[in-house]
Formats: sequence, structure tokens, C-alpha cells
Amino acid sequence: MSLIVQKFGGTSVANPERIRAVAKRVAATRAEGHSVAVVVSAMSGETNRLLGLGRAMAGRPLERELDALAATGEQVTSALLAIALADLGVPARSLLGHQVRILTDSAFTKARIKAIDASQLSKTLEQGHVAVIAGFQGIDDDGSITTLGRGGSDTTAVAIAAAIKADACEIYTDVDGVYTADPNVCPSARKIDRISYEEMLELASLGAKVLQIRSVEVAMKYGVPVHVRSSFSDVPGTWVVGEDKSFEAVIVAGVTSDKNETKITVRQLPDEPGIVARMFEPLAAANISVDMIIQNVSADRTTDLTFTVPRTDAQKAREIAEQVAREIGAKGVTSDDDIAKVSIVGLGMRSHAGIASRMFRLLANEGINIEAISTSEIKVSCVIAAKYHELAVRVLHDGFGLGKAP
Amino acid sequence: MSLIVQKFGGTSVANPERIRAVAKRVAATRAEGHSVAVVVSAMSGETNRLLGLGRAMAGRPLERELDALAATGEQVTSALLAIALADLGVPARSLLGHQVRILTDSAFTKARIKAIDASQLSKTLEQGHVAVIAGFQGIDDDGSITTLGRGGSDTTAVAIAAAIKADACEIYTDVDGVYTADPNVCPSARKIDRISYEEMLELASLGAKVLQIRSVEVAMKYGVPVHVRSSFSDVPGTWVVGEDKSFEAVIVAGVTSDKNETKITVRQLPDEPGIVARMFEPLAAANISVDMIIQNVSADRTTDLTFTVPRTDAQKAREIAEQVAREIGAKGVTSDDDIAKVSIVGLGMRSHAGIASRMFRLLANEGINIEAISTSEIKVSCVIAAKYHELAVRVLHDGFGLGKAP
Repeated sequence: MSLIVQKFGGTSVANPERIRAVAKRVAATRAEGHSVAVVVSAMSGETNRLLGLGRAMAGRPLERELDALAATGEQVTSALLAIALADLGVPARSLLGHQVRILTDSAFTKARIKAIDASQLSKTLEQGHVAVIAGFQGIDDDGSITTLGRGGSDTTAVAIAAAIKADACEIYTDVDGVYTADPNVCPSARKIDRISYEEMLELASLGAKVLQIRSVEVAMKYGVPVHVRSSFSDVPGTWVVGEDKSFEAVIVAGVTSDKNETKITVRQLPDEPGIVARMFEPLAAANISVDMIIQNVSADRTTDLTFTVPRTDAQKAREIAEQVAREIGAKGVTSDDDIAKVSIVGLGMRSHAGIASRMFRLLANEGINIEAISTSEIKVSCVIAAKYHELAVRVLHDGFGLGKAP
Repeated sequence: MSLIVQKFGGTSVANPERIRAVAKRVAATRAEGHSVAVVVSAMSGETNRLLGLGRAMAGRPLERELDALAATGEQVTSALLAIALADLGVPARSLLGHQVRILTDSAFTKARIKAIDASQLSKTLEQGHVAVIAGFQGIDDDGSITTLGRGGSDTTAVAIAAAIKADACEIYTDVDGVYTADPNVCPSARKIDRISYEEMLELASLGAKVLQIRSVEVAMKYGVPVHVRSSFSDVPGTWVVGEDKSFEAVIVAGVTSDKNETKITVRQLPDEPGIVARMFEPLAAANISVDMIIQNVSADRTTDLTFTVPRTDAQKAREIAEQVAREIGAKGVTSDDDIAKVSIVGLGMRSHAGIASRMFRLLANEGINIEAISTSEIKVSCVIAAKYHELAVRVLHDGFGLGKAP
């Protein structure tokens, strides 16, 4: 008998009919002799509806209250699924963040899990119940309800799996796994059977959108085997697991792109110690997460600094950059929304030379100009004009031979 | 500076606009220097929507989960009102049943409050916050969410007022107070300025519907002055308070009627000790609350037994009565849905003779036949044919001089 955590996202629990289908799947897993804890998201659209109500009340709604509001979405789904399970003769109990107890910090709307006291959950499972846990939510030291931010139910599921030492964490979603590229952009994309946590981290953060990045961090930290799969079929999906030697053979695991960033360039900063810190400290204070940072080689004691930020933060980031630029005597600030970032990701890059230059050549062959480059051990990212982004993904995907079975 | 509890029902918080109006009223009370705890219901229609979802999942949904589901309605309102208050510059925090802590028994869907640990609430108020408490909900010894049944937010408000020793508990509703009769039925009905807990209990249980009966019991037990008033005007409403000598002058405080009962008659029961208990024990076990019970004078060692039950329970009650009738050898069971109960209520009845006979005469003058009679110290109820119920209310109301100012 295994201990399995199953997580179902918003589209999998979109209406009573789908919730019943989820209940059948959970019941089938339990009928195979497994002990099951389920983590659910809000019914699709529900979180937006709730936050919309909150925003209708005030221009700057209290974040503590937005969390109390949004947490009701998962509470509703967990109760409905417990009801559906009981209707199939499966004993079930819903558990909310404060009942499990999922303890978080007090960063409302984007809290982080500090600890899980799984004694209540373990008791529920030992009594033969399916535990239906409301994802996305926790409770802080004051007893206030917190939420983990968008996609937080994945993190709940993996953290729960780690806390109860589950044999696997199954993430059910509306796609059947992680692909080598976005199939909508790249028809030759194929499903990846196994991928390492490290590669998944880079793919997720770059926009693969099947699995929330923080959940992968937690899975890696605690070695939780994660199985991303479709809630609409029984076909195996993609296993996200610890690295082993077999991964080295694959040079590039996937190609991904992101059109939701804005590139900001600060021209002719004085090239002095501490200048870069002065630029990024106020951005961090404003909670703007900076993605790529590229500083060009300096000349005549000045340097150009380019960075990318989520487009939703671009306005604020540009204002901050302009303020700092004035203070430190930089020449000026420009920004460009019309960009895309394409990236190749693969553990094999660590032991194979020339991957980056091959990427640049493949893009150049299509006349695609590279505006900025950033590399890490297992990733190379290029900023290009937005209009080329689909073309770039296809060219890189097929150029690195991802379309064929490995 | 007073400590005031204000409770707003579903129609008062039906949409963001109304919630903002509630926030303004709370802010105004606070601006007068009072400390305020607010109790809110779910937005009107929301509880039905949630329970409808639950019932769409299963024929007999788990009651524990129905409570977790329904409790989200008040959670949403409390968060929205806290947001609206903060937007007006009033510091506010929502508090849920498990946060206040409102401890109840485990009778899901109809739990009773056992205790309130108001330390968290007092701390919130001392810090200068308005506490916005989700009504209708609590938590049992296991940490499961419970709800108090329909109208439970009134009970939450009064129990909170008792726990923090508030100076008053204001119940805001869509009517401007308690009337001597239903104004829709009786045009000469007038608002009552002051009424005793005892009278209010009889009026509420008989269908006055302004104030949940259990909340009046709690108010009476702890001596909480309750002010029932309109959320749409500043006109004073009705104070529900402890009895004093001035009440004795008023013989009949109000006339009320109930069309939602069914009369069940068991004919020719053996007139033996224990027979009546055998009839009502299984009804109690089935959680059917029996209202009037009338046993006629026995003849030839048999007796007829008549009782009324809520119409929603009539089918089940009749089945149980028929089963018991067979077991004990009664002649048969009849039931009648086409009835109404009209009642007169007043503390003054205790010291004035002839009130009941005057009621019977007033009904007889209109040709209204009385099918059953039940009396208590401060109430006389008659069962009549349903078609007469509006006429009976008007005749009694004006016959006892209620249309004029006292």
C-alpha cells in the first residue's frame, strides 16, 4: 500500500460534474489499496470572481482580507469533493489550511509555508478517510488566513507529500505532461517522460505553466517524486524526479519562451562599486522580481545596464529606474515591451561545450537579432523581438533534435 | 464610550454597494466614540447557492461538509466589509468562527454555541480595530467548522455581545422593528417600541421572522439589550429588553400567524400511561420539532391526540405516527395541511382574566371555526382553516386595540 497525494487544479474541478469525475478517480486509486490525500484548487474562475469582489470594495483592498476572501474558493471545492466521495461510499473529510495546520509567514497574498503539522492529517488518513485538503491556503502565527499566491495549490500538494512522506505526488492538470516546447507553437513538440527538478525549475520559471515553480523547489528539497498528468486520461504523464546519470545524455530537455516581460535599459551609469546595488535595492523593496540582468562591458567609466521585469510591473519599475538614474547621474532610461525571451534548458549543457553558440547560429540563420543574452549552468536565454518568438521556438526545438524520440 | 455589537443580515450586505453603506454606518458609530464589533451574514442568496452546489453533488450530502461549504458565505462578507471599512480609513479585521473562537457542539447544520473565548476579539477591539465577525459559524472540539442553522447570525451577534459585555446589540434588518402584526396582512399594525424577551420569544417562534428565536433566548439569559432596526434608515426600531412593571399594562403585545404547519391527529389511542411518550419519542429521535400538542378528554379508555409539525417534516411525521399507531392499536391517523395558527402574545395576560375567551369570541363573530387551542402563560394559539388566516389576524389585532398607540 502506497501513500499518494493527488492534486486537482481549477479546470479539473470546474463544475459538479467534473468534481464527480475527480471523486471517481480518487476512489479508484483508493480501491487499488492506496491511502490518498487530495489537494484541490478553487473551481476555475472562482478566485478571479472573489478577488474581483474584493477590488470592487476599495482601490487598495487590505491584503489580509483578500486572503480570507480568496481562501473560500478552495474551501468550497474541498467540501464538494468530500461530499462527492462520500456519495461513492468513500469516507472523506475536508481539511482547511488552519485544520491541517499549514503554517506560513504573514506575507499575505504570497505567503510561504514555514511548517506543516501533519498530525491531524495523519490521523484522518489512519482512520481510513480520504483527506481533501484546500490548497493555496495556510495560517500565520496570529491565526490569520494566508494564501500562497497563484498556483499555490501545487506547492500545498508537494509540501503535504513531503510532510507525510508520500510515495508520490500526482499533479492532475489539463495537459498530459511537460512538453519539449509549447505544442501550440511547435507542432513537433513531444511529451517528456522524465525530467530532473533542476530542468523543471528552469522550464517552469520560463513559462511552461504546468507546474508552479515553488512546488518544484519544495519537491527538490524533500525529494518528492512528482507526476504531472492529465485529469482527463489515464496515460502516464511526466515524472519530475531527482537527477541521475541517465539525464546527462540529453543535452537540451526543452525550449521555452516568455512574452510577458519588459526590457529596461539604463544608459551610461557611472561604473562605480555599489551602483548596481542602488538600482536593484529599491526594485526589490517594491517587490518587483527582476528576471534577466545583463551589464555590458564598461567603457569611459560608464556602463549600460539591462534587465527584464514582468510586464505588469514595468511601469513601476521604469519609474523607480528613472528616479535612481537621476540620483546617480545616469544618462537615461529606455524600455521595450515588444520583446520575447526564448530559452533552452538541459542538464547536459554542463558537460557539453558549444551549446550556446549553436543556439546563436540557429537564430542567426533565420535573421533573428539577439538583443540580450543570459546564461546559467543549464540554461541559455536570448531576448529577441516579440514577432520572432514562435519562429525561434520552432527553430531551436528542431535544431536541437527535440522532435525525435530521444 | 460604549461597546456596541452591530449585526447586518443578508439583504443589508447584498452587494458591494450595500456593503459600502454598512461600512459608512459602522464608521459613523465609531466616530461617535463607540467601540464596535460587527457580525455579518452571507450576501443574500449566497447560502442557498452554496447549499445548492452541495446538494448537486449527492442526494445526502455530508453535513460536516455542508457546514464547511456554507460557512464561506459569511467569510466572504466579513472580508469585504473589513476592506470597505479600511477604505474609509477605519482599521478593521475580519474574524471567523475559528478565529474568535466560537466553540459549538458537533451538531452540524444546527450547532449550538457552547462557549466564546473572546480574548482574540477583545485584543482586536483594544487595538482600535473594528472586528468584523463572520456570523452563523463556529468550530467544534475537533476543529471542524459548524454552522448554527438559518438565522444563526443573530445568535452569533447576541452571544458575542454577551461575551464582551456589550452595552447593546443592534440587529439591522430590512424592516424597521417588530410590529404588532404582519403589516402586509394587517394595515393598522404599528411598530412596537419596547418588548420583553418573553413576548419576543413567543412572537419570533410564531413567525414574526425579524429575530431568530435562539438569539432571543441567549439575550434573555445574559440580559443583552437588543435593538432591532432598519439598515436603510436612522429611525429607532424596537428594543427587546428585560421585563419590568411597565409591561404589565399591555395585555396583548402582538398577533402572529403561521401557515407552515401541518396538523396531525391520532384517533382513539388507548388511554394508558406512557402512550403519549411512545408517540413523541420517535418524532424527537427523527429531529422533528413538534409545536402544539393537544390531547382531548378521554372517553371509553381512548383519547384523540392532535399535534402540529413544520410542513416540511409532515410526511415523515405522519409515517412515524402511523407506525406507532399500528403498534399501540390506535384507530388511525389523519393529517391536514390546510391550516393556519393564529396567536396572541402578551405579558399582561398573566394578570388579566378572560383574554382567551375574548379571542374565541372575536373569531366566532367572523364565523371562523377553531380546530384546536393551545395556551401558555403569555400566549393563546388557535388552529383555524388556512383561508381565514389574514382575516383572523386583522380581527384579533384590532379587537385587542393594537392599532392605536398604547
